[in-house]
Amino acid sequence: MDASIQSEFIRPRDIAVNDSFWGAFMERVRGNVIPYQWKALNDEVPGAEPSYCIRNFKLAAELTHPELDYGVPRDIGFGGMVFQDSDLAKWIEAAAYSLVWHPDAGLEKILDETIDIICNAQQDDGYLDSYYIINGLEKRFTNLKDNHELYCLGHFIEGAVAYYEATGKRKLMDALIRYVDCVDTHIGAEEGKLHGYPGHEIAEMALIRLYAVTKDQKHLKLAKYFIDQRGRQPLYFEEETTRNGNTFYWKDSFVKYQYYQAGKPVRDQHVAEGHAVRAVYLYSGMADVARLTEDEELLSACRELFANISKKQMYITGAIGQSAYGEAFSYDYDLPNDTVYAETCAAIGLAFFARRMASIAPRGEYADVIERTFFNSIISGMALDGKSFFYVNPLEVLPEASLKDRRMRHVKIERQKWFGCACCPPNLARILASIGSYVHSVNSSSVYTHLYVGSEAKVSPGGRDVKIKIETKYPWEGQVDISFSPGGKAVFTYGFRIPGWCKSCTVKLNGDDVKYTLRDGYALLSREWADGDRITVVFDMPVNLVETNPHVRDNSGRVAVTRGPLVYCLEEKDNGKELFKLHAGKTQDFRVKYQKDLLEGLCTVSFTGKKEKDWEDDALYRSSAEAVYEDKEFLLIPYYAWANRGAGEMTVWIHK
Amino acid sequence: MDASIQSEFIRPRDIAVNDSFWGAFMERVRGNVIPYQWKALNDEVPGAEPSYCIRNFKLAAELTHPELDYGVPRDIGFGGMVFQDSDLAKWIEAAAYSLVWHPDAGLEKILDETIDIICNAQQDDGYLDSYYIINGLEKRFTNLKDNHELYCLGHFIEGAVAYYEATGKRKLMDALIRYVDCVDTHIGAEEGKLHGYPGHEIAEMALIRLYAVTKDQKHLKLAKYFIDQRGRQPLYFEEETTRNGNTFYWKDSFVKYQYYQAGKPVRDQHVAEGHAVRAVYLYSGMADVARLTEDEELLSACRELFANISKKQMYITGAIGQSAYGEAFSYDYDLPNDTVYAETCAAIGLAFFARRMASIAPRGEYADVIERTFFNSIISGMALDGKSFFYVNPLEVLPEASLKDRRMRHVKIERQKWFGCACCPPNLARILASIGSYVHSVNSSSVYTHLYVGSEAKVSPGGRDVKIKIETKYPWEGQVDISFSPGGKAVFTYGFRIPGWCKSCTVKLNGDDVKYTLRDGYALLSREWADGDRITVVFDMPVNLVETNPHVRDNSGRVAVTRGPLVYCLEEKDNGKELFKLHAGKTQDFRVKYQKDLLEGLCTVSFTGKKEKDWEDDALYRSSAEAVYEDKEFLLIPYYAWANRGAGEMTVWIHK
Repeated sequence: MDASIQSEFIRPRDIAVNDSFWGAFMERVRGNVIPYQWKALNDEVPGAEPSYCIRNFKLAAELTHPELDYGVPRDIGFGGMVFQDSDLAKWIEAAAYSLVWHPDAGLEKILDETIDIICNAQQDDGYLDSYYIINGLEKRFTNLKDNHELYCLGHFIEGAVAYYEATGKRKLMDALIRYVDCVDTHIGAEEGKLHGYPGHEIAEMALIRLYAVTKDQKHLKLAKYFIDQRGRQPLYFEEETTRNGNTFYWKDSFVKYQYYQAGKPVRDQHVAEGHAVRAVYLYSGMADVARLTEDEELLSACRELFANISKKQMYITGAIGQSAYGEAFSYDYDLPNDTVYAETCAAIGLAFFARRMASIAPRGEYADVIERTFFNSIISGMALDGKSFFYVNPLEVLPEASLKDRRMRHVKIERQKWFGCACCPPNLARILASIGSYVHSVNSSSVYTHLYVGSEAKVSPGGRDVKIKIETKYPWEGQVDISFSPGGKAVFTYGFRIPGWCKSCTVKLNGDDVKYTLRDGYALLSREWADGDRITVVFDMPVNLVETNPHVRDNSGRVAVTRGPLVYCLEEKDNGKELFKLHAGKTQDFRVKYQKDLLEGLCTVSFTGKKEKDWEDDALYRSSAEAVYEDKEFLLIPYYAWANRGAGEMTVWIHK
Repeated sequence: MDASIQSEFIRPRDIAVNDSFWGAFMERVRGNVIPYQWKALNDEVPGAEPSYCIRNFKLAAELTHPELDYGVPRDIGFGGMVFQDSDLAKWIEAAAYSLVWHPDAGLEKILDETIDIICNAQQDDGYLDSYYIINGLEKRFTNLKDNHELYCLGHFIEGAVAYYEATGKRKLMDALIRYVDCVDTHIGAEEGKLHGYPGHEIAEMALIRLYAVTKDQKHLKLAKYFIDQRGRQPLYFEEETTRNGNTFYWKDSFVKYQYYQAGKPVRDQHVAEGHAVRAVYLYSGMADVARLTEDEELLSACRELFANISKKQMYITGAIGQSAYGEAFSYDYDLPNDTVYAETCAAIGLAFFARRMASIAPRGEYADVIERTFFNSIISGMALDGKSFFYVNPLEVLPEASLKDRRMRHVKIERQKWFGCACCPPNLARILASIGSYVHSVNSSSVYTHLYVGSEAKVSPGGRDVKIKIETKYPWEGQVDISFSPGGKAVFTYGFRIPGWCKSCTVKLNGDDVKYTLRDGYALLSREWADGDRITVVFDMPVNLVETNPHVRDNSGRVAVTRGPLVYCLEEKDNGKELFKLHAGKTQDFRVKYQKDLLEGLCTVSFTGKKEKDWEDDALYRSSAEAVYEDKEFLLIPYYAWANRGAGEMTVWIHK
């Protein structure tokens, strides 16, 4: 492990995002998602299933402190999913980022009051999960496999640290530190403790985030324990299930334990398997622990898993999780476009994993995946008005199939208002509200820029504050201007990513050509930087036809249209029905046009392709003949913007 | 309806099959399937789940006649599926055909003894379903939707009539006539009767078969009632479910009633929907009733349904039922090859339907489907040793997907020994043992030949006995010799089918060219026939590349290899892994070779195609480039013979 190239990503408070593309998404989160979700958490959305989330905490607080009266009827128990608490935690995290970006005293007051309620529910020993506080504490920690206590813990740590970093207020974080202490007394390597680990991972990376603030070795140790213990013999989930008479949903499945990535030690896991969100959350925690403990073996597993995903199991949109069964990975080179699961949260989790790998080593293969997920399969999860959401992000849709083909029953053809299991919308909110923290990473001698987001950031290579300003119309134009204000002069290496999609670019420093070193997908400039220094990069951004490795059965003979980081798609609205009859042909006559009134403003790509003509009779089979085509004008829009104009067919992959 | 072109298919006893191709299948049925199934019915197959079938009837007989003692422990109740009786019925039917083809006193004795047991179970009022005799007669006819009484009735009628036609013995048929009388007192249009119909169709066509022997209008009337009443408002299955507190498995499904083809009157059903076996059994009964009652409206529905299937929902192998969900039709032009259900029984049922349509009018479109199903998706259901069976007959198989992709969990990569729900093997047995009855049909002035099966048949156009002998090496060679012995001279029209796959043929009469009329896919010769007259037809039988209508998404840009009636496939055994990398190219260099030692003897097809080369790196995506191919020798075998040499990939459709 080369410590010299490791770097830490900046925090949201270190950067002010003013990007026209990403700012619009952040504003949708701030203006729509966060207020809407607050209503949802309070069961105030007419017509929607109640969340019960706030009510659960109020009830838990009343049970803990009988002197309190939030007015919750005592005869009503816990409501919602067993992991309902996590919805609130994710909301707190997103709201915290939003406060950094856009201070809002009213929102902060709501947060403080909510945190008071949460803290009032905390038990004397620190325990803080409303499901068990309401349903009986004697049952806690009896079903780590499925009852999501440690999952909720993880999300609450993330929310608490985010709120602390946004406001300096420690109350919730201190409560979570006490909850971690409580968990620590029950779970761990020592005799008498449960030798368990989370059924749904996230606590691992959350504990590392807490450790980054507290520097308390206990937090690192517990994260490492969860990683090391996972999948060891005897299998904890087997023992726990037997001991407590729990059920095992996946008992007869080929993913019995690997659904949870818990069938073998994590260092023996070389292929991404099981529930995709769980998997990439685990791998993120593994990467964190590997970095902090300098565990080469663990890092090697992370590298293998990342390579397995990005080279064998990742859609061109960055989506992962091929199979609706188990919302899971399936197997190498299996990339069905129409029956895919591709959960929004899984793409988000892949960005988490890639960010951590990029932190260990700035390599284009990692940050390219961050960019791929952000520009495609993450933001496809949200409507352009910020009011409806996809769980599942297919690359090919036929409305009739979604109605009549049970294989596609999970594939919705229009985004949904909210979900009973509301994991994706708040996950989108927290990652979009914190996109600034993906832009740069820093170590004692270097600054790396991974994403090109219009912003002003403060970084501190070697302790010296440097302001970096990015100006760009990315992803619509390839020019990026980066200017530096080290407050005088400062020596450091500046590395900026040359995207994998970019075949040529020009780089100028203060208007002049400049020599740079290219290493692992980053252009490096080591020099003394002075106030006003300005790098101007122009990434050539032509339309590109992309094809898939021939091992992939489903994309055989097909191409996708990309431009810059964006994957494009054909929609029925622009191209008619039966998109599978369309053939791209060999044209290079691509026309790119920015259309400010279309879908909140975007660049369309059009070109002349071909459409297979119908036969003159209605036979189902005939002797093969030369296909007859007619010229056909194709209009493509960025994939993220699909399904914002009503239901219809859509495809990313087009016949050659 | 043109009565002059209607004809009746011959019965098994009218023909002696001596075909080398079909004879081998019949011998597998006689030598393996029938004896094996007899053991299964008697719970004598080591390691297999008991069938309980014979035991159920013995117990029912003991309960009906307490003086009997078959030695069945009285504390054991009904065993097996609710429709377990039908397994025995199908076995009786197959065994009856086998007796005709190959007399066997030992088998006949077993049949007589078994029929005695069955008849001993019959109630005074004629009722004869072992499930309710054992479980309580008060519950009979309370769940027509799911409890298969009328399905078992139908299969027993088929078996009883077959046995009567084979041996002249009426005992079982008379018992069934009494059972039909019993049903008739409970179900029908009259007030006080249940206005119901079968949940799983077959009784309709079975009653017509009984009617053909008895000429009792009651039998036709009941069949017609089942057809007419089906799907009428108020929906019987809704009423019945409510009245009797039954469950409704498909309650929340888009096929709630159409799973059973019971959501609307059959005359309003224009598209094949729901459970595929049920559907084609119903349509068969509809065609029978339409013909016998000269019901033009009903016939029109049959024509529409047949056209819908054969032009929009039928695989090239003749398989139907695209969806594992509900073992059902899905929607027009949806023909996925790898997740298909394509139950063997559904292909058999389609042959039933096509045969009845051909009986109404000799049109190539009907008999072509009979031929397509027989030579491909029916016989693919049985291993070449007659000892293992497919339910599901996919057109594309990846062993890894069947293990790891839940969408393919129903797709077995090797044939199975037997099934808990054993519908397909005995259904195969009965249709293969009766293939002779598909060869000719006859009316007062004409004889039509639909299938070319080496045989000697006795037909009676206009009451005059005529012997017709067919000699052929079909499907390996295209020559068919047909000779006539009218016992002197006889005037009639002889029509023989020119298969749809045949683009040119020569026809000679007694060695000389002869003029014939071509009508609807049949060559017609109207003349006075004399003993020794001989038609020699040579159907050109080149290898053909076939493509699918462009509306079919899944076969876009693909071809299948056919020769004569046979669809060919590529297997991994002969062509290596990753069959989806293969491209047929534009070759016409096809080599056909009869290989007598391969897979019981068959013609292989080989040609030089192309295989896409692997990339030099392991990237998952790259800019589209000209694909690089290497020449590749392809070896194809007939589809029916796949999966007889171990597990591996298989595909029918190949990239162009």
